[in-house]
Amino acid sequence: MSLVKFVFGDPLKTENLASERLTKVKALAIFSSDILSSVAYATEEILLALGVLFSCAFSLPIAGTIVGLLFVIVASYWQTIEAYPNSGGAFVVAKENLGEFFGLLAGSALLIDYTLTVAVSLSAGANAIVSAFPSLSNHIVAICLSVLVLVVISNLRGSRESANILSIPTYFFIGLVLIMIVYGVFSSGSATKIAPKIAPDASSLLVLVVILRAFASGCSVLTGIDTIASGVTAFKKPQYKNAQITLLFMGIILASMFFGITFLSRKFAIIPSESETVISQIAKNVFGSGALYYCMQFATACILFLAANTSFSGFPRLASILAKEKYIPTRFAKLGDRLAFSNGIIFLALMATFLIIIFNGDSHSLIPLYSIGVFTSFVLSQAGMVKHWIKNRGNNWYIKAALNAFGSLVSLITLLIIIDSKFTHGAWIVLLLIPILFCAFRKVNRRYAATNTELDLKNGSIGCLLRPIKNAHPKVVVPVSRIHKGTLAALRFAASLSNDVQAVAVNIDQKEIDRLKLTWRSMDFSMPLVLLNSPYRSVVNPFLDFLYEQDERNPENGKAIVVMPSFVPGKFWQNILHNQTATIFKTALLYRKQKSEQTRIIVEIPYQMRI
Amino acid sequence: MSLVKFVFGDPLKTENLASERLTKVKALAIFSSDILSSVAYATEEILLALGVLFSCAFSLPIAGTIVGLLFVIVASYWQTIEAYPNSGGAFVVAKENLGEFFGLLAGSALLIDYTLTVAVSLSAGANAIVSAFPSLSNHIVAICLSVLVLVVISNLRGSRESANILSIPTYFFIGLVLIMIVYGVFSSGSATKIAPKIAPDASSLLVLVVILRAFASGCSVLTGIDTIASGVTAFKKPQYKNAQITLLFMGIILASMFFGITFLSRKFAIIPSESETVISQIAKNVFGSGALYYCMQFATACILFLAANTSFSGFPRLASILAKEKYIPTRFAKLGDRLAFSNGIIFLALMATFLIIIFNGDSHSLIPLYSIGVFTSFVLSQAGMVKHWIKNRGNNWYIKAALNAFGSLVSLITLLIIIDSKFTHGAWIVLLLIPILFCAFRKVNRRYAATNTELDLKNGSIGCLLRPIKNAHPKVVVPVSRIHKGTLAALRFAASLSNDVQAVAVNIDQKEIDRLKLTWRSMDFSMPLVLLNSPYRSVVNPFLDFLYEQDERNPENGKAIVVMPSFVPGKFWQNILHNQTATIFKTALLYRKQKSEQTRIIVEIPYQMRI
Repeated sequence: MSLVKFVFGDPLKTENLASERLTKVKALAIFSSDILSSVAYATEEILLALGVLFSCAFSLPIAGTIVGLLFVIVASYWQTIEAYPNSGGAFVVAKENLGEFFGLLAGSALLIDYTLTVAVSLSAGANAIVSAFPSLSNHIVAICLSVLVLVVISNLRGSRESANILSIPTYFFIGLVLIMIVYGVFSSGSATKIAPKIAPDASSLLVLVVILRAFASGCSVLTGIDTIASGVTAFKKPQYKNAQITLLFMGIILASMFFGITFLSRKFAIIPSESETVISQIAKNVFGSGALYYCMQFATACILFLAANTSFSGFPRLASILAKEKYIPTRFAKLGDRLAFSNGIIFLALMATFLIIIFNGDSHSLIPLYSIGVFTSFVLSQAGMVKHWIKNRGNNWYIKAALNAFGSLVSLITLLIIIDSKFTHGAWIVLLLIPILFCAFRKVNRRYAATNTELDLKNGSIGCLLRPIKNAHPKVVVPVSRIHKGTLAALRFAASLSNDVQAVAVNIDQKEIDRLKLTWRSMDFSMPLVLLNSPYRSVVNPFLDFLYEQDERNPENGKAIVVMPSFVPGKFWQNILHNQTATIFKTALLYRKQKSEQTRIIVEIPYQMRI
Repeated sequence: MSLVKFVFGDPLKTENLASERLTKVKALAIFSSDILSSVAYATEEILLALGVLFSCAFSLPIAGTIVGLLFVIVASYWQTIEAYPNSGGAFVVAKENLGEFFGLLAGSALLIDYTLTVAVSLSAGANAIVSAFPSLSNHIVAICLSVLVLVVISNLRGSRESANILSIPTYFFIGLVLIMIVYGVFSSGSATKIAPKIAPDASSLLVLVVILRAFASGCSVLTGIDTIASGVTAFKKPQYKNAQITLLFMGIILASMFFGITFLSRKFAIIPSESETVISQIAKNVFGSGALYYCMQFATACILFLAANTSFSGFPRLASILAKEKYIPTRFAKLGDRLAFSNGIIFLALMATFLIIIFNGDSHSLIPLYSIGVFTSFVLSQAGMVKHWIKNRGNNWYIKAALNAFGSLVSLITLLIIIDSKFTHGAWIVLLLIPILFCAFRKVNRRYAATNTELDLKNGSIGCLLRPIKNAHPKVVVPVSRIHKGTLAALRFAASLSNDVQAVAVNIDQKEIDRLKLTWRSMDFSMPLVLLNSPYRSVVNPFLDFLYEQDERNPENGKAIVVMPSFVPGKFWQNILHNQTATIFKTALLYRKQKSEQTRIIVEIPYQMRI
């Protein structure tokens, strides 16, 4: 227990929840590491899609278009934050304005996306390390998983502490990238290769396909914009204003870094390579192979690992919203000891581990799965905002609606481009998963509703439940296998409940039964011992058959009460040594189809071992 | 359920156990596929260890030595079978004659070995397939695991049915190999390469090391001899005679196949290759690339898969013996529906899966781990036999003792050679595992003994357990969260038990509590509702604290009885939707350290959902 406390910290009181709020500076670190870190791979994805031939001519225009798209979406979310100061995530906005259907669609897209963010960011971070230290190239998965463990621990410790740990490296990365860009732009002499200045005829269809594919790849830089909108409540007051300003700053920083890096990649005629990332190549061109280069790689790895961390605030928050509305198991809404949504954190970690192992830590294969979820949620959230303005009006509502409509349309076009150009590269997996999750949400929700209806006192007659139990001597059955202190305690309690007690033993091993009969005769018990045969060696079935038979005897007396001796070893792990007969009996009793729906009372008399 | 029945067959009655016996012919198929199949890789291991330079000169002498060793061990086990007609496995023989220490040593060596047999045989079988169809070379692990599933199913169906399925391919393999040897020996013209007839100076130390290493590698052909000795009870009567004859036949067949294949490998100057097994190369030389070659590869793969199957009779049998003597959890002694030791079968399958995945289906890396366990058990079992003859005497006991002593000594020397030459190749893993398992066995055994002592009626006072419970109004506590039909049923039963009932709710969510209070007031309950605060959001801790406080009130009345409403959804999987509060409470109640050792009575009132 003290190790757990050392790693995760002391539990926090619920009253502390309100004080767990982030300043703008800290919030930028927490919420923007996802989107900012994507500059570490987005340019590379564009260059890979374009190929050597087209890179020089099209990389900058594509990056420019994406930056334009960025500001359309930032403007759109600026309005969302103001309209939804209590968590304006795509799920809430879409559900409230467009109905459950679109809300759940957005919700499933987002959950998938948060998971992919963790996997992509950890893999890309490991790649940054491997670029600097090529000898580690066989240990990418191990690097990813080790970092994941650290991220999970830091998140289980609670959000304020995370922000403190994480602010420094975010700003370190921003600073280093900006220095690299400024230094790289002005030091014109350091280009080592000459760019092949071929500008092919852009009118042909092939070129258009290549450009669209590169655009789709580059859009991975936009994943994570919405994290701020769904985390408004984590800001210090005035919450929505702080969130808006943070969002704007994030957009400006992202735009300059992304455009700057793409510019430098063109200037230095970088060609993507298997063994070294584009940003590592640029850094070598600008800084040489000295300390600053290693700092850059270190900072890149750090921000990518923090990006994984972003999902660990976003996913559990969204899961808790879904859980409160009963679309996923309600345990995801529970706060842990340190005021973090522990279940969501652990679940996300497991899913990400699975993805990293399946894709072997290869970020290039994960990225095509990535942008679909993001843009689905962009489209739905902004469409929801249009509906919102139409419903609620207010000052200049038509301008606001038009802006959101434009954002939604642009996102939709982008989404279609991404689906078209990435379908066979893995996007189909996500297009399959979204409806599966969607249906699961619906099913879970309907199930909770049905449960509530059945348990509700208003439905059906509860008269029999309010009348006191009059029967002084209910039927009682005690399963025994041999006579020891545990059995004695059970028989004793059974005798105190009723005069109609039967001890029942199932004959699996004749020797055991003979021994039991001998002991039984030597003791002076008031109840009969019933022996049941079991030709198929099952302990459970003969017992259940006997029990059902008892139930049918005087049905007006209710079902037979089962008094079960159970055995509790001193330490939990020691349970593997014992046959868990009590648990097996109970599970069988509760989950087998039964004739009558009446409640069966099960009394457990645990014998706690002292050793 | 009907799918399960279709796959695994109808359950068998215990009375059928006696008729599940094997004829000699079937027993040879069941018990000898392990040892016979090892000819598929043993020659290859010798050639690999010798290298091209020494192969020609030493492969035959080494094979000859190993065949000699084989017959020493066969003679030794011949005597064991006669002396121990009820399962003369190394564990039983060593434990009975040399004491628990050596018995458990043999037991751990054997369990490890059975597991390795499965992994090695499946991997080697997959290699045989891949040799014939090189395009499958990336799917070795998948092939191994698919076959494993089939083997597990066939074993869970019970032993007689297995023998029927498995007899044909064993004899098919034996026949084909013998045909190949005869045909290969006499068709002198078909050698494609000329053997480099270099006979290096054998006096140098290096050569000795190489020879010993090759000998150690070749000894993998002897793994599995003891399976018959530990499976004597599975034979038809007269059991021990049938077993002896089967053992002798097995030895003769093995010797001819192993020596023949090694001879052919020398004749055709086979050089081991990564992509093709030695036996596949020989078969190509003898049969060409026609149908007979593919038959040979198919037969090799089959016998290797059956070898994996051998362990599925050996391992569960040994595990059941260990379980009956309480060295491992007793559930391993339980017969399943089809009179097979299901738990042992499933456990073995899991361990083998783990090994195959870890070693990526590479039999060459698994084999060095392999022989240590076997020879450890050979040494101990034969040493045990020497002791047995000294104790029991009988006709010519000194000759028998001398034979076993010779076998033990030879095995010990072989074991030392294997440890010395294979230590760094993976043998250290086994040398580490054997003592770990050994200690685990001891610990489990001591634990069972301690449990028995504590539960026994003879130890300590049981007077209080025999006196009837006089207290008419025990303290009863009912945890509630909200009032629904389930809670009502629990409160109703609690009221029938005592007048001293308290309903307890833990305040996690103020809204829930307000709603609860409102409902409580509207109903007309006789018991008070106690509200507990929980600053750290734990439901369990405040409740336990309250309970302990109640226990201390009038301690002579015993511990407070907990009546717990629990919730049973219609289907088992639906439990993930509910918070399992009842289970969490119970676990906390039972496993937390408590002041008093008295039994706490826990009554569960399950509410079974109709939907």
